[in-house]
Amino acid sequence: MMNIQKPTLILNKEKCLRNISRMSEKAKKHKLIFRPHFKTHQSAEVGNWFKDFGVKSIAVSSFDMAVCFANNGWNDIAIAFTINYLEINKINTLAEKININILVESEEAVIFLDKNIKSNTEICIKIDTGYHRTGIDAGDFDEIGTVLKAIKRSRKLNFRGFLVHSGNTYDATSKYEIADIHYNSINKLKKLKSRYITEHPDLLLSIGDTPSCSIMDDFEGIDEIRPGNFVFYDVMQAELGSCSYDDIAVVVVCPVVAKHKTRKEIVIYGGAVHLSKDFIIKDGEAIYGLVSLFDGETWNQPLRNTYIKKLSQEHGIIKTTPDHFQKIKVGDLLAVLTIHSCLAVDVMNKKYRIE
Amino acid sequence: MMNIQKPTLILNKEKCLRNISRMSEKAKKHKLIFRPHFKTHQSAEVGNWFKDFGVKSIAVSSFDMAVCFANNGWNDIAIAFTINYLEINKINTLAEKININILVESEEAVIFLDKNIKSNTEICIKIDTGYHRTGIDAGDFDEIGTVLKAIKRSRKLNFRGFLVHSGNTYDATSKYEIADIHYNSINKLKKLKSRYITEHPDLLLSIGDTPSCSIMDDFEGIDEIRPGNFVFYDVMQAELGSCSYDDIAVVVVCPVVAKHKTRKEIVIYGGAVHLSKDFIIKDGEAIYGLVSLFDGETWNQPLRNTYIKKLSQEHGIIKTTPDHFQKIKVGDLLAVLTIHSCLAVDVMNKKYRIE
Repeated sequence: MMNIQKPTLILNKEKCLRNISRMSEKAKKHKLIFRPHFKTHQSAEVGNWFKDFGVKSIAVSSFDMAVCFANNGWNDIAIAFTINYLEINKINTLAEKININILVESEEAVIFLDKNIKSNTEICIKIDTGYHRTGIDAGDFDEIGTVLKAIKRSRKLNFRGFLVHSGNTYDATSKYEIADIHYNSINKLKKLKSRYITEHPDLLLSIGDTPSCSIMDDFEGIDEIRPGNFVFYDVMQAELGSCSYDDIAVVVVCPVVAKHKTRKEIVIYGGAVHLSKDFIIKDGEAIYGLVSLFDGETWNQPLRNTYIKKLSQEHGIIKTTPDHFQKIKVGDLLAVLTIHSCLAVDVMNKKYRIE
Repeated sequence: MMNIQKPTLILNKEKCLRNISRMSEKAKKHKLIFRPHFKTHQSAEVGNWFKDFGVKSIAVSSFDMAVCFANNGWNDIAIAFTINYLEINKINTLAEKININILVESEEAVIFLDKNIKSNTEICIKIDTGYHRTGIDAGDFDEIGTVLKAIKRSRKLNFRGFLVHSGNTYDATSKYEIADIHYNSINKLKKLKSRYITEHPDLLLSIGDTPSCSIMDDFEGIDEIRPGNFVFYDVMQAELGSCSYDDIAVVVVCPVVAKHKTRKEIVIYGGAVHLSKDFIIKDGEAIYGLVSLFDGETWNQPLRNTYIKKLSQEHGIIKTTPDHFQKIKVGDLLAVLTIHSCLAVDVMNKKYRIE
């Protein structure tokens, strides 16, 4: 029986290992390099679990994370975030010690790196196949060609390949839409590969979003996957079909502090600073989390017709049915299945209790 | 010139002191107890600045915050969050050392406290005058009477008064609407006061929301104000009219990492883990932050027609004009005026650089 008094991040190791195992097997089946993204868990301990599955290379989304994991024995780290010029001195220090892989999306960045980087370093080009967050448009051969030429002129930079994150799958409303985005992205990447493979015979294609990596079973032409969220999953992924509710490996356990009969609402000590303010819209309602009973050790499936309808800094307001309302008491603990586990883990400062 | 390489929380002390001074003067003018809410800054140093304005009593929104500020010499702390039974042992430890004030909203909680609290302790009743988050409905005299009787039966609990947080002012669309909520709330509270003052001649009325405390100039019948956000303000408050943009005392300074010509979008290293995912809707668009130039020391007014349109974990996407787009370069620093400073400060782990 855990002694929990305030919002607490609980990680179910068994579910987490099952998620890692499943993705690792999928990578093997499709002969893909499995380079998991560690931005979701940001934990040395969880990182170590991957080693038992033969994982040797990882991705991170900030330079600080790269330093953390380098200190934990990882020596092949892709910083899957467009190079931040202002951190070049720190990058040079790290690049002396381990193999890092740097991401660029302009000729200017390549010239900057060629001038400022001290060690021989691998470099990837960020490609945009439709998400429109970052990267060079996959059809912009002029720009891609210019960047490749700049890399070729450098004696220190070695081109590794093209990197895509199809984050638009997170906004999909069905598996068919995810498949559409996935195939569209793959087709664009394969065109790039066939165009540049002669000159760069070792070039790799790397994709990263958890929905595609979880749902799809066709990765023809792709060389590497970099999913992150799958390690824990969350409500958003369950709703997308990337996982079942039983696969979600983290919850934030929160104390019940008040009940409001007329509104059938339950108030928990658990707000935006514990769950993050991400939400999904379902049947026209904003949902900030689903809720399960918690027996002091573990949780179950989310309660039916029960969800967090509003969050302020420390409060969460749960809308529920008369039946659940009656059973749940002030002083009980409830397990919140978060909408977006990456952000919930971050606001909880990556402080897990592992069960 | 500050050496900034990654998203950094900058606090302008001068603006912050001006905000504290203004609210302190307003409290004096209206003969109100000024009990600032420290949940926004959560900083020992900023807390100390209040001492020069004669502030002796504070509010916090979690027991952990109460412990932090007690360790920093504060000895009159209202925990303005409905009592969490599970923390009773820690509460007893703190209540031995300093004066704490506990919040309840049910007879059950009073009975629980009477049974479990060890020191004589002040208690407030949370009243709901329309926000519908927590508290007993201001018109529910039966329930309020029942709670008061339970407090009276206890030898350890001393009734201090009625506490309201009109958080619905945050959703207001004009100053008139804020005034409406404010007067509606005050009128309901005054009815409670006149009903119970004979039996409880020392009872206080305490209100807390920053919009009412900033905008209104009539607090007749009210005894105490507990605003928190005013210490820094933010875009939400500026849009509500609680402050000017020049009053905003914190920004998150972020490096520019990419530019996308066709979309006139600028990508910053600065995402949901630095700014929080709070947003406002303006002219039909979700806005996750406004943006100012940053000269290495300080910032100015927000740039026109420029805003953060999307946040992912570490990325922010800024939509801007052709003119600003041209001037801003990769490697520059931009100052983000956050939508909700309380949450931005929390996700940045309260690590300020004070200018």
